[in-house]
Amino acid sequence: MKKIVLFGASGTIGQKIQECFKGENFEVVCVGRKEGDYLADFKDPKSLQTLFQKTGKVDAVICAAGEAAFAPLENLDSSHWQKSVESKMMGQIQLALQSIPNLNDNGSITLISGVLSEYPVKGGVTASTVNRAVEGFVMAAACEMPRGIRINVVSPNMLVESEAKYKTAFPGVKAVPGADVALAFKRSVMGIQTGQIMRVF
Amino acid sequence: MKKIVLFGASGTIGQKIQECFKGENFEVVCVGRKEGDYLADFKDPKSLQTLFQKTGKVDAVICAAGEAAFAPLENLDSSHWQKSVESKMMGQIQLALQSIPNLNDNGSITLISGVLSEYPVKGGVTASTVNRAVEGFVMAAACEMPRGIRINVVSPNMLVESEAKYKTAFPGVKAVPGADVALAFKRSVMGIQTGQIMRVF
Repeated sequence: MKKIVLFGASGTIGQKIQECFKGENFEVVCVGRKEGDYLADFKDPKSLQTLFQKTGKVDAVICAAGEAAFAPLENLDSSHWQKSVESKMMGQIQLALQSIPNLNDNGSITLISGVLSEYPVKGGVTASTVNRAVEGFVMAAACEMPRGIRINVVSPNMLVESEAKYKTAFPGVKAVPGADVALAFKRSVMGIQTGQIMRVF
Repeated sequence: MKKIVLFGASGTIGQKIQECFKGENFEVVCVGRKEGDYLADFKDPKSLQTLFQKTGKVDAVICAAGEAAFAPLENLDSSHWQKSVESKMMGQIQLALQSIPNLNDNGSITLISGVLSEYPVKGGVTASTVNRAVEGFVMAAACEMPRGIRINVVSPNMLVESEAKYKTAFPGVKAVPGADVALAFKRSVMGIQTGQIMRVF
């Protein structure tokens, strides 16, 4: 049985990812900052090192976590940028880099960006910026991955499950079911592509 | 006469930008860390504040400067990321944000990314990442700019002028003349588009 380490396992997308691997030949190791099979913060290299010592070599690393700060352009200050860069951008990038020696040959890494990398909304400048950065990283890193390791990024739209909370911020946007987003992660893990932006919108 | 503040004025692209505005109704104020009409570091907010106090309101801000660190994927460490994020990415983003109150109505901001945002080369992962980030920022920020201010990003290929130095790192790439890159900056400043990636490759 192959092993997946799933960051953000308790979130809406994380839960759907767990569901969609049921019945497949994969064990999903759930990781979160507050709950899960193991506790770890993907932004903290030491925390990751401890985690991978416990899990041993794995076949896939999935990140369905990462934050960006929202504010109108005129109100953006360094704290918004710091949070977004440290979490969704550099957090995921460092996670990917640190995963490489802990992945079996032909393993995979799947990160998360989001629709704002291509369709901006008011107040989403930092999210658009860091999502694009993650996509650029994935495209370039895929070309230099050792031992057949693949890397992709899933770019979800607003979720049906969180539409009530976010719909005023995303006018005219057709929400997508979390289960559809989970399928894109499954396609990345079980498929053959690398360096791809797997859009779910 | 309208006023342009040009960061990176003494570089290859900066010099060509100066040339291509000759005969136009623009005064080009040359800024650099070591030489120019004014000395300033676009990564330092205080340095920018002092600069704009000297120039007064301007009609265009151009950045033809910014560094990214090159290293093969397996050798990337936090210092490569820090340099690239602080200079080419957040340096340019903070420059753009700080330029807004110092621009006249209908002014413009033009940043620089580079071909690696779309066509990676070995050792260029951080450049691909931060170039994409700058492009995402420009796309999103354009939608929230006040007072008719526009923002674009020029994405140049390897330059003919630096081909001898870089051609082994860019195999199979057709270099572009610096003067062509300068024209893209001119198109951004004197044209009507906003939120665009002006590719010169």
